[in-house]
Amino acid sequence: MYTAHFLMREKDLIEYVKTSTDLFEDEEELLWKDIGDGNVNYVSKVWSPASGRSVVVKQADTATRLSKRALDLDRNRIEAELLVYENKLAPGLVPEVYLYDPVMAAVIMEDLSGLQIMRYALMEEETFPLFSDNITDFMAKTLANTTDFVLPSAEKKALVGRFINPAMCDISERLVYTDPYFTPATNTSISPENLSFVNDEYQKDERLLDEVAALKLDFMTNAQALIHGDLHTGSIFVAQAHTKIIDPEFAFFGPIGYDVGNVLANLIFAWVRAYVRRDSNPTRNPEFLPWVQLAVEESIDQFIHKFGEIIKVRNTLGSFSTHSFQKTYLRSLVSDSLGVTGLEINRRVIGTAKVVDVTTIKPTGLRALAERILMEAAREFIINRTSFGSGADISETIRKIFEKSARWK
Amino acid sequence: MYTAHFLMREKDLIEYVKTSTDLFEDEEELLWKDIGDGNVNYVSKVWSPASGRSVVVKQADTATRLSKRALDLDRNRIEAELLVYENKLAPGLVPEVYLYDPVMAAVIMEDLSGLQIMRYALMEEETFPLFSDNITDFMAKTLANTTDFVLPSAEKKALVGRFINPAMCDISERLVYTDPYFTPATNTSISPENLSFVNDEYQKDERLLDEVAALKLDFMTNAQALIHGDLHTGSIFVAQAHTKIIDPEFAFFGPIGYDVGNVLANLIFAWVRAYVRRDSNPTRNPEFLPWVQLAVEESIDQFIHKFGEIIKVRNTLGSFSTHSFQKTYLRSLVSDSLGVTGLEINRRVIGTAKVVDVTTIKPTGLRALAERILMEAAREFIINRTSFGSGADISETIRKIFEKSARWK
Repeated sequence: MYTAHFLMREKDLIEYVKTSTDLFEDEEELLWKDIGDGNVNYVSKVWSPASGRSVVVKQADTATRLSKRALDLDRNRIEAELLVYENKLAPGLVPEVYLYDPVMAAVIMEDLSGLQIMRYALMEEETFPLFSDNITDFMAKTLANTTDFVLPSAEKKALVGRFINPAMCDISERLVYTDPYFTPATNTSISPENLSFVNDEYQKDERLLDEVAALKLDFMTNAQALIHGDLHTGSIFVAQAHTKIIDPEFAFFGPIGYDVGNVLANLIFAWVRAYVRRDSNPTRNPEFLPWVQLAVEESIDQFIHKFGEIIKVRNTLGSFSTHSFQKTYLRSLVSDSLGVTGLEINRRVIGTAKVVDVTTIKPTGLRALAERILMEAAREFIINRTSFGSGADISETIRKIFEKSARWK
Repeated sequence: MYTAHFLMREKDLIEYVKTSTDLFEDEEELLWKDIGDGNVNYVSKVWSPASGRSVVVKQADTATRLSKRALDLDRNRIEAELLVYENKLAPGLVPEVYLYDPVMAAVIMEDLSGLQIMRYALMEEETFPLFSDNITDFMAKTLANTTDFVLPSAEKKALVGRFINPAMCDISERLVYTDPYFTPATNTSISPENLSFVNDEYQKDERLLDEVAALKLDFMTNAQALIHGDLHTGSIFVAQAHTKIIDPEFAFFGPIGYDVGNVLANLIFAWVRAYVRRDSNPTRNPEFLPWVQLAVEESIDQFIHKFGEIIKVRNTLGSFSTHSFQKTYLRSLVSDSLGVTGLEINRRVIGTAKVVDVTTIKPTGLRALAERILMEAAREFIINRTSFGSGADISETIRKIFEKSARWK
């Protein structure tokens, strides 16, 4: 309805959703609320108290919301097109899209107010028995179906072109693959207890740096599948009966392990948080630690199983059809996922994009312990990623580091 | 000058080069000759007998020249843009471009009549002492400078998008990576002596098929550098003092080893041809076999050396700067190149796109011997590609197969 881009305010937004969707009557009273909490975009909820109907409007501006850094509006097209595509591949696991408007760089989509952001729910030690089934459905369906096993060659190449995403890839290349290893830590970026460990040992570990470089090059070159690109627990809405994945604005054709590793790492933040707080948390949920370990194991094991089933059934190329080839391929997905698990952990612990799961651990001694456990696990995941074959191997590694941590001073 | 695409004939072409370049006078008499010998495009030479000046016009039509198969005109844009780009990266090693005309899908470029097509020169056992230095210059400069070591992240991604090339990649995916392994050979596609070897043994070798599948997936996903994509000795013009690389219409961001492997394989065709004809060739050049072996070894060794120098000096990312990382990377280029050497050999020996180096060997018994030597070498290159570290390893493998071949009945 608008013919030139501007940042919509309350009245504009109410008018906009009335005109652009058929969910509301012309004369209906609508209310508006700013629900954005990310750095990048403007997110509003618009709803009718009378009908109870509601939508979310996500709009991109030419500068980011908080830091006011210039950022290409194209991220909004990528997000909207990907949401539509994901709705086809994994219906029910992403919000419905009512409108994508390239002029306004805006998407009107399903309101997920009934669900909560997974990161905060995990911090409260809430468990979600359906989560690993849902997230592995989402990943297997969106990832396997956009590989060369399934997509016709020319169709895939056209999609690769449509989802080239330089601005958002640049952010990941810096925040995930570079800064945690090349920007010295300070007393404000890491617990003081870990400062010399990071600066004098971790960032000087040449084996680690070379493996990170190999993973970075893979991120920059490997057009393996159309990945979500930012699949942490802040991009996942949960309820006991539902899981919805949002915010695919980092999407591009990249390594499958990038999505899987993000899920694993963010479950591990919740796991390590609960572990170090197990004796001091007054509202501890005794079922949480066993559940989160199981969720980690199932998220990789069920993913590999479901992914394997899809390519077995839907692969169209004789070349890729043997059991031995597919088995080797699936094994490489586990390794790649573990590598990224380590990278995502370090990004959040050492890098600038912290997660509250870790930063809010008190007292600070426990926070330092959690950071150290996480960094040790991350290094193991990155350097020895080809030796991991299943979720049980991950739990075993974490268990050993927990044991070892009891002996740290 | 023309406003809609049509296939230009003699008069149109003469008018076209007069109007579109400043190489000729308006009243100058120009002559025309069809010099196309490929399946795909129309290639003409237009020249002035008076001034001696000449140009080549390469025009694409909406159907291929010989087989009349529909083919996207976009290949012509890709070729022209790449020639311009290669002129910047490797000046002197590609023809100059005087005009690229997207409307006519035509390129007016430097006439290389003074040079000969390398394949035919090698069949005459002519040697080119500067060749390995020139071709490794070309490959190192065009390939290293289009990797993520050198190109800024966003610039590279924009180039990836500009050179997405589905139509031409589809041809390679079928002819190089599929047909030789899945289409049974017949008495017209291979020497009768090798028919059962191909159908009953070679195409049933599961280790070989799985390694070919891995290389195919790499071709379809690995945006490593902007490759030429068809770097066989029919795309290379040579003279004693010059080398010029033409026909980059298969270009896209793909695996570096694809270009290097094509060069190696096509030198090996000339090598094996000369070897099996060594006692029966009345015009044998005794210097040819030592030279072609040296050319193979230098083409990989000098390439790796020059590529390594470029990334050492021009790499802009801290992540990729360690000696150990670059060494591992260079080693992987050797493996990838050997894999493609094997694929290109099989494409030409088993597949439909034959090379005259092999098909013209007489008597047919020697042709069959050459085919068998080539297929044995190809399998070794593909399956054991990670064990090759240098050109000497290639020669050693070929020498052993020559020895073994003396015992074949």
